[in-house]
Amino acid sequence: MSWLPSLQTKTPEEGFELALKLARMAVKYTQPDAAIRDTLRTEYERNADSLTMASHVVATHFQTVAKANDYWK
Amino acid sequence: MSWLPSLQTKTPEEGFELALKLARMAVKYTQPDAAIRDTLRTEYERNADSLTMASHVVATHFQTVAKANDYWK
Amino acid sequence: MSWLPSLQTKTPEEGFELALKLARMAVKYTQPDAAIRDTLRTEYERNADSLTMASHVVATHFQTVAKANDYWK
Amino acid sequence: MSWLPSLQTKTPEEGFELALKLARMAVKYTQPDAAIRDTLRTEYERNADSLTMASHVVATHFQTVAKANDYWK
Amino acid sequence: MSWLPSLQTKTPEEGFELALKLARMAVKYTQPDAAIRDTLRTEYERNADSLTMASHVVATHFQTVAKANDYWK
Amino acid sequence: MSWLPSLQTKTPEEGFELALKLARMAVKYTQPDAAIRDTLRTEYERNADSLTMASHVVATHFQTVAKANDYWK
Repeated sequence: MSWLPSLQTKTPEEGFELALKLARMAVKYTQPDAAIRDTLRTEYERNADSLTMASHVVATHFQTVAKANDYWK
Repeated sequence: MSWLPSLQTKTPEEGFELALKLARMAVKYTQPDAAIRDTLRTEYERNADSLTMASHVVATHFQTVAKANDYWK
Repeated sequence: MSWLPSLQTKTPEEGFELALKLARMAVKYTQPDAAIRDTLRTEYERNADSLTMASHVVATHFQTVAKANDYWK
Repeated sequence: MSWLPSLQTKTPEEGFELALKLARMAVKYTQPDAAIRDTLRTEYERNADSLTMASHVVATHFQTVAKANDYWK
Repeated sequence: MSWLPSLQTKTPEEGFELALKLARMAVKYTQPDAAIRDTLRTEYERNADSLTMASHVVATHFQTVAKANDYWK
Repeated sequence: MSWLPSLQTKTPEEGFELALKLARMAVKYTQPDAAIRDTLRTEYERNADSLTMASHVVATHFQTVAKANDYWK
């Protein structure tokens, strides 16, 4: 099964979690080695700017997911 | 209850505060440890560029929230 | 009264100033101490990249405000 | 007269120049001192990343201006 | 044949992969030398912030691709 | 003749090349000296983050161009 069968989600919260997943998947495609990603995670999860940068990527994907769901109106 | 039951807010100001919340929640998902987040906060809240970066994430989420509310017209 | 009663403005120039305000308000929410913000201001207002980053946040908010006003057509 | 009477322009090229102006005006609002801005300019105009960052701000404003003009179709 | 015959894809996952391709193609246009790109890749694929930056570009392109496909509704 | 007569292009690939051109033109407006730009190019074209930043600007412009062409549907 596809890791991304659809952009539709039942709730805004699930949509937000999909945005988080999309942000991580782009990293996974670029760096497929899970061990290296785990090492990098220990670095950036204790760096405020790194976390803000990651939050920005999520915000960009959340725009897409929210629109795909007509903002769950 | 969900931390994000809806993107609809009564006023633009509440919409702005929701954007702030969305920006922080992405950080919280990535760094779930509140103590670490508090430590990081003491760093970035005294760094101009860190604050500007955080403000950019809020701006991106505010685009989403404002559209979800048809700009509170 | 709310600091953000509406996204509607009479003119594009007022809309631009609202975008500047939105950018600053996100910083204010994150760093509520005015004295610290003043100190940070003296740093970033003399740093070209800091100013460009701030200008980017304004640009993002201006997209929202312009759309909310149907581009003042 | 307002420095921003309208987002409408006759041509895409004029629209691009308006986007450049919007990017610069946000800097001007934040750093009103022309002498300081001139000094900063001599720095960032010889730094590749600074120019790319500035180009990104222009791109964000150009999205707004292009939409305001219905893409000059 | 064009490397970009269409923005339409059959599935969201293929759309995401197209977004990845678009992000890489812009780099390829700017740095056409494959050997240099390979060297650079070994650097940024082990740097968390570099990966986050790359993920952000993908997110921006994914907005475009998703919209082009009406969010695969 | 204008360097930007229209945002319309025949194909997505031409649209992508127009996005590249728009990204470069903003740099050209800010740094009109071709010799300096050439020097800067030798630096950033061997820096992974610089290339990613440039790719992000292209992605932002490609959003505009793709929309102007109704995604070449």
